[in-house]
Amino acid sequence: MTIARTNDANVIDATRIEAVKVEYYQIPLAEVLSDAKHGDHTHFEVLACRIRTKDGYEGMGYTYTGGKGGRAIYSLLNDELKPFLIGKDAARINHIWEEMGWHLHYVGRGGLLSFAMSAVDIALWDIHCKRLNQPLWKVAGGESNTTRCYAGGIDLNFSQEKLLNNIQGYLDRGFKAVKIKVGKENYKEDVARVAAVRELIGNDITFMVDANYSLTVETAIRFAKAIEKYDITWFEEPTIPDDYQGYARIAESTDIPLAMGENLHTPYEFNYAVQQAKLGFVQPDASNIGGITGWLKVANLAFVNNLPICTHGMHELHVSLMASQPNAGLMEVHSFPIDEYTTHPLRLDDQARAVAPDMPGTGVEFDEDLVKPHLIKQS
Amino acid sequence: MTIARTNDANVIDATRIEAVKVEYYQIPLAEVLSDAKHGDHTHFEVLACRIRTKDGYEGMGYTYTGGKGGRAIYSLLNDELKPFLIGKDAARINHIWEEMGWHLHYVGRGGLLSFAMSAVDIALWDIHCKRLNQPLWKVAGGESNTTRCYAGGIDLNFSQEKLLNNIQGYLDRGFKAVKIKVGKENYKEDVARVAAVRELIGNDITFMVDANYSLTVETAIRFAKAIEKYDITWFEEPTIPDDYQGYARIAESTDIPLAMGENLHTPYEFNYAVQQAKLGFVQPDASNIGGITGWLKVANLAFVNNLPICTHGMHELHVSLMASQPNAGLMEVHSFPIDEYTTHPLRLDDQARAVAPDMPGTGVEFDEDLVKPHLIKQS
Repeated sequence: MTIARTNDANVIDATRIEAVKVEYYQIPLAEVLSDAKHGDHTHFEVLACRIRTKDGYEGMGYTYTGGKGGRAIYSLLNDELKPFLIGKDAARINHIWEEMGWHLHYVGRGGLLSFAMSAVDIALWDIHCKRLNQPLWKVAGGESNTTRCYAGGIDLNFSQEKLLNNIQGYLDRGFKAVKIKVGKENYKEDVARVAAVRELIGNDITFMVDANYSLTVETAIRFAKAIEKYDITWFEEPTIPDDYQGYARIAESTDIPLAMGENLHTPYEFNYAVQQAKLGFVQPDASNIGGITGWLKVANLAFVNNLPICTHGMHELHVSLMASQPNAGLMEVHSFPIDEYTTHPLRLDDQARAVAPDMPGTGVEFDEDLVKPHLIKQS
Repeated sequence: MTIARTNDANVIDATRIEAVKVEYYQIPLAEVLSDAKHGDHTHFEVLACRIRTKDGYEGMGYTYTGGKGGRAIYSLLNDELKPFLIGKDAARINHIWEEMGWHLHYVGRGGLLSFAMSAVDIALWDIHCKRLNQPLWKVAGGESNTTRCYAGGIDLNFSQEKLLNNIQGYLDRGFKAVKIKVGKENYKEDVARVAAVRELIGNDITFMVDANYSLTVETAIRFAKAIEKYDITWFEEPTIPDDYQGYARIAESTDIPLAMGENLHTPYEFNYAVQQAKLGFVQPDASNIGGITGWLKVANLAFVNNLPICTHGMHELHVSLMASQPNAGLMEVHSFPIDEYTTHPLRLDDQARAVAPDMPGTGVEFDEDLVKPHLIKQS
């Protein structure tokens, strides 16, 4: 038996894909944001994929980057996936997810392909939920319609004073959990910033740090030991995401749980990370793990390994996915404010929980007036 | 200490990169070639990257695909890497290799990015060798100037008669080793084809099979046991390249050594494969493992693990790399005849060993008259 052989016997003609549109936006940030390895961010890129079925349903999916690679994703969507998708049955989401991967496997297996697949997959889920006339949080699992969340700063270039002002801003907006970047040339500077933030926020606020894979294993261990006393909920991406065994060495050396995920682009990579990296938290991003289909595969992997599922970026979509899951940890409210360009920006309730939209579909629709000025090209 | 921080103190102005050109070709195949998971190939894509330094050296690097994704690679080269490279010191090959990876890390970590990085890296090595006035086989290691090789068919769609005619053609051209595709709907058909080929070639010809990751682990084991008696040198990509532990299960169940590599796009992935997949042969492709720098990292990984290093595709370049290494196994002479579009097509000596070019540089230069008709775009 060969694998993943299926046939098209049950295709309903009405649900076939009739049109695929692709849009590429560059959206400027209000100020330059920096972390240890990606450097300065001046803008982010958004790729939208709009899919229409023969019976008139329309879905919108999207992915984003920190400012680079968007044109290559546009090419994958427009030159490769668009012709591949036309005529396929939009209802067969798992099948299309697999087939996109095989279709572009030679230039794929994760990496950039996962971003393009994500935009398509999210559009198909949007259609699926609209057809069911249900919001995503119910279709994806229905555990709840709210989730715990935290504000994630991209603030390594901020002075300590500005860092503290920024954190105070998060508290003023109601957040009960915050994360800062670390990875300064000398880790002792990071320790001082962690100490200052903990002093500002007091003992009741949840606090995480994120090194964006910038440290050696040895320095990560030194740094982790030095900040244990500040009650750190997780230490995110201490070293390169390729080094699962290095993560395990760090995890064995500190009481602080480790977290990773934004740079793992297939559920298989997450499987190895969960097996070998001794993680405390798992953080897939639906924009680069193959969309909602990929994210849910990782959420289930986390569940059976007794691990909380978390997220990276695109909180306006992840709010529904996190709310839907029984093992939800903390959702990141990211510093790229994609939600502010949608018709339903993220909303926190009075318990500081993020609230999933109740409209049928993913609940994410771009506000035409807001995004149009940033459109670079479309097809 | 953070990782991979270096400075530009030792840059020599003369060796700075002054110009980067990108060319995209689609080259038709003489006939449709098929394998189990990529399907039909009607053409292949070639992306060339030409780099010139301030002091007038010019290098050409390239990558290729089986027909899809080339425009996205073009975008990575033209929109992202070209502006990044201008002004960099071409002599710092390792540094540029690392920095390309960090620059596009968020949309990278292998996958499509590795193809674009490969084209750049090969161009830098071409300059490096030309500056030294030495051929690549000497600069890359100098073990020898020839290597054992085999003819790799993409022949799953061939009737058994045509398959045998094709193999006879390889023997007539002097090859002493051949490989066929397997992965038919019923594996017993593959067994019959293997038996027929072994009968044709006799006992002295080296013989391999390649399933292009199309089988379940269980079927791969059944198939491997059924063909053990035909003296198979390796079983290539029995199942998905993501499943290292599945490879190990197959390896433990059969006497036939396993081989993989064309779908692993970082040296880290190879490290896990070598550690966990119980491979007998390691097959990096310099066009998608990050060029010559990436290929040599994997060759060294194979060396310290007492494994023969092999290749996939682009034999006109790999001949020099394989010849240079002490642990060279068998080089694939691939069914995409890129070499026939160069000024030095692959040559076998009377021992059926492939001979590395002796000209300074990588020894690969496209023949303008032959490739020009297939140029799609350039910048």
